Amino acid sequence: MAAEIERKFLVKGDSWRSLGTRKVYRQGYISTVNGITVRVRIAGENGYLTIKGKTKGMTRQEFEYPIPVEDAKMMLDTLCDRPLIEKIRYKIYLEDLLWEVDEFLGENKGLILAEVELNDEKQKIELPDWLDREVTGDLRYYNSNLAKYPYQQWKDSVEM
Amino acid sequence: MAAEIERKFLVKGDSWRSLGTRKVYRQGYISTVNGITVRVRIAGENGYLTIKGKTKGMTRQEFEYPIPVEDAKMMLDTLCDRPLIEKIRYKIYLEDLLWEVDEFLGENKGLILAEVELNDEKQKIELPDWLDREVTGDLRYYNSNLAKYPYQQWKDSVEM
Repeated sequence: MAAEIERKFLVKGDSWRSLGTRKVYRQGYISTVNGITVRVRIAGENGYLTIKGKTKGMTRQEFEYPIPVEDAKMMLDTLCDRPLIEKIRYKIYLEDLLWEVDEFLGENKGLILAEVELNDEKQKIELPDWLDREVTGDLRYYNSNLAKYPYQQWKDSVEM
Repeated sequence: MAAEIERKFLVKGDSWRSLGTRKVYRQGYISTVNGITVRVRIAGENGYLTIKGKTKGMTRQEFEYPIPVEDAKMMLDTLCDRPLIEKIRYKIYLEDLLWEVDEFLGENKGLILAEVELNDEKQKIELPDWLDREVTGDLRYYNSNLAKYPYQQWKDSVEM
């Protein structure tokens, strides 16, 4: 088990695109009940099964296990809610931090999110100038919620 | 992924007790939505995470992965619905078949179920004389349902 402590931001401009590696992610949710999620992910050619607990502040319990990619494919095809989340993940190392920038595709196209994982909630970090406003804790931007209420459906009505 | 094809029976008498090995099982459910279950199990000293799909006839999709027992303990303690399922599993080999007899404890005490896994739905099998009536397909006897509606609560009112 790992405790996941992260901050999340919207992204502006394109200057970040040249800074990192990119990999296609495809993921879906077997269940999202009471804030506990069961996620199936294919990252590049690798499969993962991930259980996340409830979020408290910026922190969330996370249990992640590698699984055969064929199992992941079958679970995405037959057990996961629709729509699936499809995105390109850019991994960008800046100073001692790993920024993961997700450019969403499909029904979430238009949304770009940056996440950074911290060692503790009070850790001070330098914010790159391609970050827009912070959305840590905003439930709408959880991937599990984007699988239920995709960005393409809410960008006109809910964006503030 | 494995396809799980099984038949399930109630058990009578005690003659089966001397036939097999026994191990304590403790398990719980992270979610049981639309017939899809996410189960955490500790069997003896080993942890498992298991996803099961919907049942069709006697057949059910099953994806099972070994996980660290410490992870399993933490998930049982913090993420799984109550009550947990506690039982003693007896593994009994007869002819070419493995019979798994579950003697339930706690809130399901009094219930004893035998399961046998088959290669196909039409496989003919010899039924040991310690079997009572067949309950294959009876949703009440699913472990995931016994975690919601334990046997101790329904033996007077629902048993037919």
